[in-house]
Amino acid sequence: MSLPDIKKDFSGWYQEVVYQAELADQSPVRGTYVIRPYGYRIWELIRGELDNRIKETGHENALFPLFIPESFLKKEAEHVEGFAPEVAVVTYAGGKKLEEPLVVRPTSETMVHYMFARWIKSWRDLPLKINQWANVVRWEMRPRVFLRTTEFSWQEGHTAHETALEAEQEAELMWKEYISISQNYLAIPVFSGIKTEQEKFPGGDRTYTFEAIMPDGKAVQMGTSHIISQNFAKTFNMSYQNRDGELEYPYLTSWGVTTRLIGALLMVHGDQKGLILPPRVAPIQVVIIPIMKKGIDNKSLLDAIAKIESELIKIGIRVHVDDEEQKTPGAKFYKWELKGVPLRIEFGNRDLEKGVVIAVDRLEGNKKSIILNEVITEIPSMLNKIQEQLYNRAEKKVVEMGEKHKKLETFASRFSKEGGFYVTTGWCGNPECENKLKEYKGSIRCQIDSKEFENCFNCDDKSVTDVIIAKSY
Amino acid sequence: MSLPDIKKDFSGWYQEVVYQAELADQSPVRGTYVIRPYGYRIWELIRGELDNRIKETGHENALFPLFIPESFLKKEAEHVEGFAPEVAVVTYAGGKKLEEPLVVRPTSETMVHYMFARWIKSWRDLPLKINQWANVVRWEMRPRVFLRTTEFSWQEGHTAHETALEAEQEAELMWKEYISISQNYLAIPVFSGIKTEQEKFPGGDRTYTFEAIMPDGKAVQMGTSHIISQNFAKTFNMSYQNRDGELEYPYLTSWGVTTRLIGALLMVHGDQKGLILPPRVAPIQVVIIPIMKKGIDNKSLLDAIAKIESELIKIGIRVHVDDEEQKTPGAKFYKWELKGVPLRIEFGNRDLEKGVVIAVDRLEGNKKSIILNEVITEIPSMLNKIQEQLYNRAEKKVVEMGEKHKKLETFASRFSKEGGFYVTTGWCGNPECENKLKEYKGSIRCQIDSKEFENCFNCDDKSVTDVIIAKSY
Repeated sequence: MSLPDIKKDFSGWYQEVVYQAELADQSPVRGTYVIRPYGYRIWELIRGELDNRIKETGHENALFPLFIPESFLKKEAEHVEGFAPEVAVVTYAGGKKLEEPLVVRPTSETMVHYMFARWIKSWRDLPLKINQWANVVRWEMRPRVFLRTTEFSWQEGHTAHETALEAEQEAELMWKEYISISQNYLAIPVFSGIKTEQEKFPGGDRTYTFEAIMPDGKAVQMGTSHIISQNFAKTFNMSYQNRDGELEYPYLTSWGVTTRLIGALLMVHGDQKGLILPPRVAPIQVVIIPIMKKGIDNKSLLDAIAKIESELIKIGIRVHVDDEEQKTPGAKFYKWELKGVPLRIEFGNRDLEKGVVIAVDRLEGNKKSIILNEVITEIPSMLNKIQEQLYNRAEKKVVEMGEKHKKLETFASRFSKEGGFYVTTGWCGNPECENKLKEYKGSIRCQIDSKEFENCFNCDDKSVTDVIIAKSY
Repeated sequence: MSLPDIKKDFSGWYQEVVYQAELADQSPVRGTYVIRPYGYRIWELIRGELDNRIKETGHENALFPLFIPESFLKKEAEHVEGFAPEVAVVTYAGGKKLEEPLVVRPTSETMVHYMFARWIKSWRDLPLKINQWANVVRWEMRPRVFLRTTEFSWQEGHTAHETALEAEQEAELMWKEYISISQNYLAIPVFSGIKTEQEKFPGGDRTYTFEAIMPDGKAVQMGTSHIISQNFAKTFNMSYQNRDGELEYPYLTSWGVTTRLIGALLMVHGDQKGLILPPRVAPIQVVIIPIMKKGIDNKSLLDAIAKIESELIKIGIRVHVDDEEQKTPGAKFYKWELKGVPLRIEFGNRDLEKGVVIAVDRLEGNKKSIILNEVITEIPSMLNKIQEQLYNRAEKKVVEMGEKHKKLETFASRFSKEGGFYVTTGWCGNPECENKLKEYKGSIRCQIDSKEFENCFNCDDKSVTDVIIAKSY
């Protein structure tokens, strides 16, 4: 079944490609999805790389309970306001009505901080740097597979420190690790900056974000890293004895990325034929398709393919041989293009005689003839090149979709009607000017580290920071 | 704080060692626990090994939703009877009462089978072999950390096959992988066999189990592998076109192990000083403790230690240097013995002069002097030896706790009052005889593959199978 037109119906294209490429499927519970093996493998690859970096930077994994007492969420006023409308609540269990309802975690700050208060008694217990890989639930009114789902998988880091500076450094460090993974693994260029007061984590002091622009000009918030207010520490009585023997409260951070990274990955790189997966996160990096002739013996061809396969596996390439006999090569090309395998090797008896294979890259469709004994050097270098090309192509698209405007009037009506672009402009820092964007379905995605604009896009006041304005997923 | 007497108060010892060694902690929600980094690392090591085997045997990981419509559970009569009393139910979400309550998965057969029915259309879609790593919830009235917890982490494999034979082979294959991990990684000897009709998976045809005997004579069910009734396939309309073009239902299996493996691991190997972790699943295999003198320069000692550390890391040993300056060597010995690190290296200036380190094994406390340039060959071999010794010691204990009886009368009163042993005997297959054991707090743990006994332990009928009878966790 062919995909909806990616230019005319991007949203339809996205949903269809996710289902047809067997990355995920709808489940019988609205807003939740099944992540199928091909999609889950992408998550495993992202998770593996991120988990290494989390450990290398001195964090340890732990696991906190799924259920949080409802009263915990209410302890921090801003926090409950932010999450209460989204939570799922267990009221019956073990055949009885519960005395206190339990909330299915929408995030774990309250539970983690309750435990931190038990564990942190002295400055010697700091810093405390914990991470967990877990599922969380936030009731979703407008579900969209991977991007907005009632249940999702993520990691959430939680740390406690002696000084505000250390907490700030921690939040920035993990934010930078995220950005590096986005750029170097997912091949997704991002804007990074600070969320506005309205958009920051409910109950936090500051939220660092990184945002990717999709081909339709809309932004995806890829992940966030928060400096949490000391109010949390006070709320949960997290006092400890500092180096001077006085009682003090630690400085806290939390940071997370979710399975929505997969959604962004698919949208940024896909084309009309289907997905294009960056080699570093592709479950299959190379698919080998034997071009078999009927009526002749294909044994030596298949033997040669098995040899190439095992050589590629040996150097760490994720390779799959599609030797299904029922299907034509054409049907196989179609299938693996849809699934976004970055490199295809075609290999027939005539190639075997010549001692070459034909490698076809998914991005440009370029064919290249490779001498058999150069396969193990050529293939990795082609994969690296595709990884790089994907990033460059994505970056070029983002640049093309960017517009700079001094005033709201010059973009507002085109922005809300046609879309397809995002805006860099100046802002005075006033939430009223920020809220003006809601009329146009836009928002400030982040305050960036530049001061090109002198005045606010809305009022005439002086700009305090440049901002990125976009619609968002 | 010293541990309760392991001989007199095994249950108290277990709970205290888990908390003091910082493997887990109580949470504010009854029956749920926080798995702390040291405990979670053990799970990561078990999970890593098992995940490799699951993939090598041709299964793929996926992820199914946490919430299951309440009606799904009710579709299979035996299944709902088995799980309904244990489930936690979400009745409110997103600020509204739900039209249909959602059950937090106690296991995922119903959800997985609903999806299987969508995916399996032809014999070409079989076998379908899926696994997921997930959290599940079963409301627990008598919680005990790791062993019986309201929420726990596990993997659950779900497969569908064309023939009954294939399903049987699959269930047996994974059961054997489990047993191999138990023996070779956890160093835990097990009994393996088939559950009785009453004890099998609710709605299954046959349940393979493997059970470990704890030092108090009680059994821990380590994991199970089920052949699921075709009723499940019919209930969820899982029909497909077979090779002859006819509609047929697939044969199903499911299999799982949980974080309770950690509980068994701790109980089987621990002693009065604390845990003893088998090297293959020890987060820290070797702890190096510098014996520093005050007033003299310890730099060359610490340099030599850093060199040993990096050499051991290079050959894949998980090593930790405890160079905390506030603590005495004695306090460090105590801490790492409690935490069960299998091998300790003591290294002082005098050792440095002699060119040796002192290695002390946690199991026997034996000290061995190792020449510096033999460290990287000696340490791995000592670790292997400890792994083997732990298994042998555990096996010896199990043999010692075993008794053979022809009749219930000869063990019943000692069994229920004193305990400390398990029984091998014969059984006629009648549930009435099986139920007789309840009076003595015992149960048939499994039907084993031997026929040593001629008559049933309870009635005078002919025995159809030998069985293991024990109290259980």
